[in-house]
Amino acid sequence: MRLISYRAGEQHSVGVMIDDNRFVSLRRLMPDLPLTLKGILEQGSGAMKRIAEAIVGNEGDLRLDQVHLDPVIPDPHATWALALNFQMHIDETALTTSPDHPQIFQRMPISIVGSGEPLWCPNPAIAKTFDYEGELAVIIGTPGRHIPVAQALRHVAGYAPYNEGSVREFQGHNRQFGLGKNFERSGGFGPWMMTADEFGDPKTHRVITRLNGVEKQDEMLDKMIFSVEQVIHYLSTGYALQAGDVIVMGTPGALRKPPGYVLGPYDSPRNPGRTRMKPGDVCEVEISGLGILSNPIVADPTPLA
Amino acid sequence: MRLISYRAGEQHSVGVMIDDNRFVSLRRLMPDLPLTLKGILEQGSGAMKRIAEAIVGNEGDLRLDQVHLDPVIPDPHATWALALNFQMHIDETALTTSPDHPQIFQRMPISIVGSGEPLWCPNPAIAKTFDYEGELAVIIGTPGRHIPVAQALRHVAGYAPYNEGSVREFQGHNRQFGLGKNFERSGGFGPWMMTADEFGDPKTHRVITRLNGVEKQDEMLDKMIFSVEQVIHYLSTGYALQAGDVIVMGTPGALRKPPGYVLGPYDSPRNPGRTRMKPGDVCEVEISGLGILSNPIVADPTPLA
Repeated sequence: MRLISYRAGEQHSVGVMIDDNRFVSLRRLMPDLPLTLKGILEQGSGAMKRIAEAIVGNEGDLRLDQVHLDPVIPDPHATWALALNFQMHIDETALTTSPDHPQIFQRMPISIVGSGEPLWCPNPAIAKTFDYEGELAVIIGTPGRHIPVAQALRHVAGYAPYNEGSVREFQGHNRQFGLGKNFERSGGFGPWMMTADEFGDPKTHRVITRLNGVEKQDEMLDKMIFSVEQVIHYLSTGYALQAGDVIVMGTPGALRKPPGYVLGPYDSPRNPGRTRMKPGDVCEVEISGLGILSNPIVADPTPLA
Repeated sequence: MRLISYRAGEQHSVGVMIDDNRFVSLRRLMPDLPLTLKGILEQGSGAMKRIAEAIVGNEGDLRLDQVHLDPVIPDPHATWALALNFQMHIDETALTTSPDHPQIFQRMPISIVGSGEPLWCPNPAIAKTFDYEGELAVIIGTPGRHIPVAQALRHVAGYAPYNEGSVREFQGHNRQFGLGKNFERSGGFGPWMMTADEFGDPKTHRVITRLNGVEKQDEMLDKMIFSVEQVIHYLSTGYALQAGDVIVMGTPGALRKPPGYVLGPYDSPRNPGRTRMKPGDVCEVEISGLGILSNPIVADPTPLA
């Protein structure tokens, strides 16, 4: 099952996809359910079973082109993001990270938009290096503390593509990434959450990032240094994971470039396969078998003071 | 004016202090107002003026000992916290930080409780070094982007004491502080927000931390390396600050110990004035002229798996 968070006019609702375009509005079909996906997840697996039964035979009442997609979870209690969780990305950045514990920071809701919505490229007077990071997002369903690795995947409600867009100058301002990972509308999360039963084992899937249709990243998810299970276990040693919490699993490296590759104007000199995002671009993050997050890039319209 | 977020039974409400014990329930007095302090701040300065007028002559209808205090803002859109913003703390930790940009990370709501509520000391099988950090919390009232330093304080609704409780082993697991600053119920925020007009210039106040009544930290807030104004300006270059956002300004160093001071069993060998928190302790953070945040420490009651 694939669930979306969407906005029609000023009304935010949850829907269930019937095919890649048509969906059922749960606001209309099951008005007793909470109006947010986090609220539905808080009701436990019973609510998800009721939804699956209620949509059988339904042909959908709306199309994606009639609405705006919100982030899959617009208002998570916490969004944890992993740094340097693929060896190729460690190599290309020349950064070091602990081999024993995941490196984890946080994102806040205002930094994230849904699929199809524009990402804001920072004003060049503020920052010039706005990078995509294609990643797998994990959405927690069942709360829990001290979760053993062997049981961790039972706490996952589903998965989604995530563009963990980063403003490199600010990320490098000091030791903690802070604001550099949290610029307004700098990342994307969507188009939908695919439930864990339908997605299967994350290790059997790929993450692929395209900029203007050109593949920039393509890596199997079994190359993650810390697995989904290990990270859920780790976080649960410190707090009780909440329904709707999001864990973003880190980005792979850029594709290797052929010998003699000539740097383009937006290429990063240190990582030649890596290219900045700029206004006019379209960035896609695909998780194989799940779907494609697509965001146009526009110039941040906010006037400087 | 001093505002609290509190819980009576299962009902969460906002109140206005009349003295250090009695308060007016806004749920009763002004039922048209939102039921959260963030919601009230989102209504702008008009709502705060209406409250100030409505409580004139009111002697209060409840006492603090009849309710539980929630964190001043239980559900902020973002809580930003500064690392290493006092020279004395930089010296004692022997850590380095940029002199040009603040070092900033985030806390999530489940890591914070109100004044009077117990903090959870981690199970010793998980971590043994649970430290207090007395700090000034800044609460944003007026949203804004690209806020000039000279106008920054106009965006502040008020201030509160904050105990930015930290689990050092986890903070040191990797480069990003991540989970080490976000253990469940590891920090406190309260007892109330004092409005900016009543508090005045933060630089004229002190932060004092006491463990079991013994002073452990005492520093003027004009010793902050990055001021409230500078941090608001910095954050606003990246995103539009929201009403109810919280900025925690960093902790000073420990008090200097006299020559010949003998390390106690819970002293930190590197920072002899610094002492871990353990079950049975009471930790207080006072901001002069504002009030005292007080939390008992109890053992995390969660069973290990």
